[in-house]
Amino acid sequence: MKNNNRICSLLDISYPIIQAGMVWCSGWKLASAVSNAGGLGVIGSGSMYPEVLCEHIKKCFKTTDKPFAVNLPLIYPEVKSHIDTIIKLGVKIVITSAGNPQAWTSLLKENGIKVIHVISNVKFAKKSEDTGVDAVIAEGFEAGGHNGREETTTFCLVPLINEAVSIPVIAAGGIATGKSMLAVMILGADGVQVDTRFAVSEESSSHKSFKEIIIQAKDGDTMLSLKKLMPVRLLKNDFFYKINNLELAGESTEKLQTLVGSGRPKKGIYEGDLNEGELEIGQVCSQVNKIEPAKEILLNIWQEYLKAYKKLNLLA
Amino acid sequence: MKNNNRICSLLDISYPIIQAGMVWCSGWKLASAVSNAGGLGVIGSGSMYPEVLCEHIKKCFKTTDKPFAVNLPLIYPEVKSHIDTIIKLGVKIVITSAGNPQAWTSLLKENGIKVIHVISNVKFAKKSEDTGVDAVIAEGFEAGGHNGREETTTFCLVPLINEAVSIPVIAAGGIATGKSMLAVMILGADGVQVDTRFAVSEESSSHKSFKEIIIQAKDGDTMLSLKKLMPVRLLKNDFFYKINNLELAGESTEKLQTLVGSGRPKKGIYEGDLNEGELEIGQVCSQVNKIEPAKEILLNIWQEYLKAYKKLNLLA
Repeated sequence: MKNNNRICSLLDISYPIIQAGMVWCSGWKLASAVSNAGGLGVIGSGSMYPEVLCEHIKKCFKTTDKPFAVNLPLIYPEVKSHIDTIIKLGVKIVITSAGNPQAWTSLLKENGIKVIHVISNVKFAKKSEDTGVDAVIAEGFEAGGHNGREETTTFCLVPLINEAVSIPVIAAGGIATGKSMLAVMILGADGVQVDTRFAVSEESSSHKSFKEIIIQAKDGDTMLSLKKLMPVRLLKNDFFYKINNLELAGESTEKLQTLVGSGRPKKGIYEGDLNEGELEIGQVCSQVNKIEPAKEILLNIWQEYLKAYKKLNLLA
Repeated sequence: MKNNNRICSLLDISYPIIQAGMVWCSGWKLASAVSNAGGLGVIGSGSMYPEVLCEHIKKCFKTTDKPFAVNLPLIYPEVKSHIDTIIKLGVKIVITSAGNPQAWTSLLKENGIKVIHVISNVKFAKKSEDTGVDAVIAEGFEAGGHNGREETTTFCLVPLINEAVSIPVIAAGGIATGKSMLAVMILGADGVQVDTRFAVSEESSSHKSFKEIIIQAKDGDTMLSLKKLMPVRLLKNDFFYKINNLELAGESTEKLQTLVGSGRPKKGIYEGDLNEGELEIGQVCSQVNKIEPAKEILLNIWQEYLKAYKKLNLLA
């Protein structure tokens, strides 16, 4: 695969499988485990203070000699400080999300960093390509955490983005198995980003209670929520229902913002408060039924991808 | 394909491609064109009075000697009258939707009719199998028209349903090309149901203005709407925005119902009132860019499916 695949060539990895950068889940431990196994490990910097990010990057360099990336939500208030750290410490790949790719791409590229931008519509995919990013991640409605306002699903989004740009396309949202990987490759993706399955991996820094409730979740247990603030896919818990009822009753954005406050994702994902925390997770959690080491997840997806591919020969 | 595919064997058709039964789009003209081309044509009875359905079935028998089906929304007030007509005239396949499969499956089966039920979650898929239906249609969030409350996408739903039941599974929602057909077959589908592309076919009875606005639509132009009443995917027009703003402001179900009234789908789809009508259509409209004869659509999807399958050999 390595030499024939644009994502493997671009990022110098063995399998075109990227672990999503996820707040309170993906620190150096998960990132280095995925990179060591041949995928692309990603440190999620959205939940980190600058000094914490610095520590995670240093530990990642110590625990793997393979490429890894930092995910950088551009709405993060200390984004410039994070970028300085990334450049200073020599991180080679940055995945930007939740913002305008024009803002920081040039600076990153000037410093020899490969830039991948997360998009959820054709307009921003084209804008990203024009800005000079190396690849885009096309993230569908089913993905966990923050999400696009158009609600375009992975299934409808990937073929459109594949048509709209000539840079490589990484599909995200709803991908937890080798079968789903093969399906999006057929729709035009060059690689995949996997969120939920890695969020409950052994190396994920999320709370044990969070992992356990996720692996028990069934279809219909998540919902795209908080649409009046910033759409985010959550597991339905007390906090979700409270906010959802207020939204249905027409509550104002300001009051909703006050009620949500800050620190909800930390409370839910990291501290394991299953009632009052924001439990960010993808719709595909209904297909994720165990806590596994990151390496096994990666190799299992890859083996299943190959098996699905071979089985296909029996179809036509 | 015919002998190796469970949907082709079950329905005695050449290609496992079903044209969705769509209000104000799919009368005898579209249904017989699809059946004559080797797929399964479907009369959408949800917009028909009993005597109108009777006429469409008779015309369908006159214009094709291939199998065709009637789609029957179980919430339709005159469902018993429709079933009597279906049995009397000798229709061999019925697709039930929007209701409990337990209500009518036995009666239909006793009369030698094959029954396929549309579901959007695991619970109803299992219930349908227990009830004795011959196959299920797993319809994802991206589908046009009425839709499930769980908002599970085609990409996440199909593998779950494939796992949950042993009867054949037909994937629906977001499928307009041979590539997307191959992708859902990999996810575990035995066949596909195609909505949007047939809704704007030459033989569709929808208004020319409706067809034209659909083929111009881009990503982000549809939205699952009217969630306080019955969720339905609509093209964003004046009517959509009016209702959507009221929903966001917390308007009551009763007032919304009064404002919507009845006859909105007819006004939009059949009469071509693009401002005040309900323009029911799938998210995949952004991939549908021309008005074509039904036969060409069917054969084009099939050829593209075979081509995508062959191209795959280059991937691994």
